[in-house]
Amino acid sequence: AARRLDGIGTTIFTEMSALAVRTGAVNLGQGFPDQDGPPAVIERAVAALQQGANQYAPGPGIPALRQAIARHQQRHYGIDLDPDTEVVVTTGCTEGIAAALLGLVDPGDEVVVLEPYYDSYTAMITFAGGVRRPVTLRAPDFRLDADALRAAVGPRTKLILLNTPHNPTGTVLTRAELDAVAAVAIEHDLVVVTDEVYEHLTFDGSEHVPLATLPGMGERTLTLSSAGKSYSFTGWKVGWATGPAPLVRALLGAKQWLTFTSGAPLQPAVATALDDCPDFPAELARSLQERRDHLVAGLTAAGLPANVPQGTYFATTDISHLGWASSRDFCWALPERAGVVAVPLEVFYDDPDAPGAGRQLVRWAFCKETAVIDEALRRLASAD
Amino acid sequence: AARRLDGIGTTIFTEMSALAVRTGAVNLGQGFPDQDGPPAVIERAVAALQQGANQYAPGPGIPALRQAIARHQQRHYGIDLDPDTEVVVTTGCTEGIAAALLGLVDPGDEVVVLEPYYDSYTAMITFAGGVRRPVTLRAPDFRLDADALRAAVGPRTKLILLNTPHNPTGTVLTRAELDAVAAVAIEHDLVVVTDEVYEHLTFDGSEHVPLATLPGMGERTLTLSSAGKSYSFTGWKVGWATGPAPLVRALLGAKQWLTFTSGAPLQPAVATALDDCPDFPAELARSLQERRDHLVAGLTAAGLPANVPQGTYFATTDISHLGWASSRDFCWALPERAGVVAVPLEVFYDDPDAPGAGRQLVRWAFCKETAVIDEALRRLASAD
Ligand SMILES: CSCCC(=O)C(=O)O
Ligand SMILES: CSCCC(=O)C(=O)O
Repeated sequence: AARRLDGIGTTIFTEMSALAVRTGAVNLGQGFPDQDGPPAVIERAVAALQQGANQYAPGPGIPALRQAIARHQQRHYGIDLDPDTEVVVTTGCTEGIAAALLGLVDPGDEVVVLEPYYDSYTAMITFAGGVRRPVTLRAPDFRLDADALRAAVGPRTKLILLNTPHNPTGTVLTRAELDAVAAVAIEHDLVVVTDEVYEHLTFDGSEHVPLATLPGMGERTLTLSSAGKSYSFTGWKVGWATGPAPLVRALLGAKQWLTFTSGAPLQPAVATALDDCPDFPAELARSLQERRDHLVAGLTAAGLPANVPQGTYFATTDISHLGWASSRDFCWALPERAGVVAVPLEVFYDDPDAPGAGRQLVRWAFCKETAVIDEALRRLASAD
Repeated sequence: AARRLDGIGTTIFTEMSALAVRTGAVNLGQGFPDQDGPPAVIERAVAALQQGANQYAPGPGIPALRQAIARHQQRHYGIDLDPDTEVVVTTGCTEGIAAALLGLVDPGDEVVVLEPYYDSYTAMITFAGGVRRPVTLRAPDFRLDADALRAAVGPRTKLILLNTPHNPTGTVLTRAELDAVAAVAIEHDLVVVTDEVYEHLTFDGSEHVPLATLPGMGERTLTLSSAGKSYSFTGWKVGWATGPAPLVRALLGAKQWLTFTSGAPLQPAVATALDDCPDFPAELARSLQERRDHLVAGLTAAGLPANVPQGTYFATTDISHLGWASSRDFCWALPERAGVVAVPLEVFYDDPDAPGAGRQLVRWAFCKETAVIDEALRRLASAD
């Protein structure tokens, strides 16, 4: 194997979902809903299959979807985009991240990234030859420390890789926090790649502010999102990147060699989702908020009190009081002990033992049917 | 943009298909059929959509598809594979190539590659930091020169990137040619990555021999293929890699960060294609052979005599007698002159002016309905 794979193992999501299948445990690990999105969207995909949308879509995505994405950005955020040069369809946000980093980062460039980080971020920073500079969202409240951000930026910094709403902590960055990001980016003339796949999945009135809407940021921000989370079709892997033409072009310059294109019959269906089901994501967020509350209450009752996230699919428990050496040990033992799978946050830190870092943090997904959450809670409550 | 994009433009397939759309020309450029594959396969995808196969598939692919791929390799070639460790599903063969190169090639490693080469090969060799060593299949007969192959291999060679049936020349490597590849690979202890997406699309009894079936090659060959070409669903981008577990693991080690997974509702349909429609690819090949003959006869009549390829979707014309500076100039003028799009081979060579190389070669796709081919031929015949 190539040396770039050294020290990079199997993604924790594959590991944990395989563990769930092997042990028959309830899977609160990998974040995917067990209810699909709007039936009208499925029927549009059916029609596309039957009416011949089965050959290569254009590399940048079908025009109808690029136009629908542009309308979505206009409708929700007042962002104006040229669908031909400022929008590109990707194979989920994962490909967007891979292509953004390969398209923008040179060997030796530093990339400032929020920690805990999604594991593909660090793998792809490594593949691009970049050097990561993590900025930790510290437990227990997981806020962005503007001083830590400023300290992470230096002369070799090329870009900031942001994520809001933030997986795995559930933090929704406030306008003040984003202002700090913008100030640093503008001062140092940095590009920001921002993964906003949970843009619509926020709770208790927490407002998602797209970084690209801040003054001076539209011209330096590449925004990534996806239909997977907003419309509950995580398996379709239809995502997108939007931003100024030169950044979109750089992403596409790499993306064209990774998959060329994908999901031809699914692309028109996602256009339908964006155009015809604009209220679905907000309804999904309301339902997720209820399930969040249900999960957090049950975890507390089971002796595993969790944070109350402002967004995403995930809540986090600090297991320090339970006496495990690490969240990884806890999560590997959990299927046997309790018939439940969760994700250990410690794998998402450079130094999981730093103050406020995640050696003892465990993530639970609540994007599941209430009955599934109930079953998991029952098992956790009765575990020894 | 990152320096790895320097000198790498937009893929010729995007360029030429966009040109076709812009000019309303008949598109004999990018290779995609205008008739879809088996209706039963489409109906299986419909059922998958409606019955809830819409969330993340496992990173390596759904077990049913991995098992169907293993059965396909057994049925057609007598190759035994463990579907859990020796088969992985990719986002088309394109992702297989990207992930194989990122997973196996270190900076400075040399990669021997057949020329003319598919443009993603050279882009991804560059992304991996590799150095390409092309071996030219020389016009007019496009055979593999074993001496040239041996001369291209040196102490820094890491792998050979093969392609048979070969796009764009239509060459199907013979057992003797493959024996030469095997001898070199074994002598120098090389890995071979072989793109065999046109494995079933051969003509006139030309036999496709999978490199992995040669003595000593099973343990060093990573074979890439796809449902796109064999089953006429190029837009689905469901492909696969098969081979020894360590090579498959290296590919997956990179692939997991490129897309993680894709096409959840399409994967069960491709399993159905492989299991229930085993005769479709051979019938498609018979029909393609007729269309090949039709296209080649018409091109000859239009003063553009082409080779008669042994496989793939493509025939090639040497335009030297027409007085164009290059195939690129010819192809860029063709929509205006004749309302047809074709692909200039010169972009697939390090030195398109070397003996037998492609400065004056033009590729035509015949994976089109006869009426479409007829229209293109009519236009070409009446062009000035
Ligand atoms: C690409 S698998 C991971 C899904 C997800 O977003 C998560 O579980 O964090
Ligand atoms: C990935 S687009 C190219 C399709 C194809 O195989 C070709 O035209 O050569």
